[in-house]
Amino acid sequence: MAKETVGFIGLGIMGAPMAGHLLRGGHPLVAFNRTASKIAALVTQGAQAGNSARDVAARSDVVVSMVADSPDVEHVYLATDGVLSGARQGTLFIDMSTISPAVAVRIGKVAAQQGCPMLDAPVSGGDVGARNASLSIMVGGAPEVFERARPILELMGKPILCGPSGAGQTVKACNQTVTALHILAMAEALTLASEAGADPAIVLKVLGGGYAQSRILDVRGPRVLQRDFAPGFKARLHRKDLRIALETASAAGCSLPGASLVASLFDALLKQGGGELDHSALIMIIQSLSARRPAAPCDG
Amino acid sequence: MAKETVGFIGLGIMGAPMAGHLLRGGHPLVAFNRTASKIAALVTQGAQAGNSARDVAARSDVVVSMVADSPDVEHVYLATDGVLSGARQGTLFIDMSTISPAVAVRIGKVAAQQGCPMLDAPVSGGDVGARNASLSIMVGGAPEVFERARPILELMGKPILCGPSGAGQTVKACNQTVTALHILAMAEALTLASEAGADPAIVLKVLGGGYAQSRILDVRGPRVLQRDFAPGFKARLHRKDLRIALETASAAGCSLPGASLVASLFDALLKQGGGELDHSALIMIIQSLSARRPAAPCDG
Repeated sequence: MAKETVGFIGLGIMGAPMAGHLLRGGHPLVAFNRTASKIAALVTQGAQAGNSARDVAARSDVVVSMVADSPDVEHVYLATDGVLSGARQGTLFIDMSTISPAVAVRIGKVAAQQGCPMLDAPVSGGDVGARNASLSIMVGGAPEVFERARPILELMGKPILCGPSGAGQTVKACNQTVTALHILAMAEALTLASEAGADPAIVLKVLGGGYAQSRILDVRGPRVLQRDFAPGFKARLHRKDLRIALETASAAGCSLPGASLVASLFDALLKQGGGELDHSALIMIIQSLSARRPAAPCDG
Repeated sequence: MAKETVGFIGLGIMGAPMAGHLLRGGHPLVAFNRTASKIAALVTQGAQAGNSARDVAARSDVVVSMVADSPDVEHVYLATDGVLSGARQGTLFIDMSTISPAVAVRIGKVAAQQGCPMLDAPVSGGDVGARNASLSIMVGGAPEVFERARPILELMGKPILCGPSGAGQTVKACNQTVTALHILAMAEALTLASEAGADPAIVLKVLGGGYAQSRILDVRGPRVLQRDFAPGFKARLHRKDLRIALETASAAGCSLPGASLVASLFDALLKQGGGELDHSALIMIIQSLSARRPAAPCDG
């Protein structure tokens, strides 16, 4: 049986390698991106070029989207030349962007009214995970829709059904809350160590072997010691994800004082021009709070 | 060659099993504790009973102390009937309590003036680590003193030389800063999940397999889901350790906004009577910030 044709919208640092895995998995692929040069790169790998989100949807059995933020996803699906204006009934939509759970639920409802099942399926694992097809994929939606999507998702990583529509985005918001506080923990510990006269490299070694261990300390700690803030995961995107987490918390009636604090500290980093650096550059803000040195501009 | 006689001061939930390991390691042991019944338990294992810190020091080649806080250590070493009033020149002091790095340095200087080398050697790993002789031991002091102490320390866990006098306590303060923020991260993520309608158990599973992983999520997360707040590590002791971290930071001229926030939240937990619960009970404070439920007294 011929494999389903996949329309892929959003060919950035994440989307391009993910689309490549679907192509190599045997799926005919119709690719679209606002910047046309990125479509050409996929065409050389065997994809067909789409002219618009609408055009992609009209030519596909499954539409996968991987764009930046909630308004981008709304535009891709709901605009005049968007996915919903072109899709046949029964076309499966998989949005892998990280957006607001509430927006994911709303677009999913509009899609359902048109007879198109939809999953929210944000990922973690970064550009490395995208290239290695080792992404963690947090999926919200109906179980039978998840089963239909599973072979496609497994070409890009490890899908886990988290609950109904929006649950994938909610779990992603939890994930980004935790990583934000782990980044802050690392920043404060390494700053305390160096300011109080202990060797930060020894702190990393001791903490990594005990109850204070985290994946972020293991992976990012050594690079922070080298002042290597090449992303990785950009500070401005983590700030965006914290906005989603805080808005989701607020809508649910709960407060996240730690996530709020890290959001404010990321704001300071962004104001100093550090938004394109890895999120671990947050340590520069903690260091700038030290009385021993004046607030330093981001020189990473 | 006969093994050195060790005087052990402080036979609490940590000290008692640590002293037991030294006894079974072949060291004659003189035990002292303010509560005499705890001395008797060690005597049944073969220890001799000491009458005071001074008496213990006079009868020992090495003094190990494991008490609660900076003032306790000052009393044990500097009081009229304290260790320094009884020790011979050359007696080795190892303080394994978690106290202020500044106090550790100060007592170390007084000891040095009397010809007694001293190490600060706080531990992590809790009562389980103490019983299993698997503690991480963060040591500050001179390298040759560390080498002299190493065989004794290795009977209780894994010693790591962190730097000069006080460095062990500074690294411990970094450790407690990180674990405090990891506890907060877990509390906020699990609260967001349940309030926003996602399954906290799935959040733990997904986060533990990715970039958000931490030892605390792995070890404590499942118990938090069961509302099991039996310590473990008591909230009031973590609050004490954060006071040390914040005072050390302040003295070094740096600010730790995250550690300050967690300290305030622990204060709220303590005020509600949760000080004897595991530090992961901090989630009750985050939950009490939710608009959906009134602030609940600690019922764990």
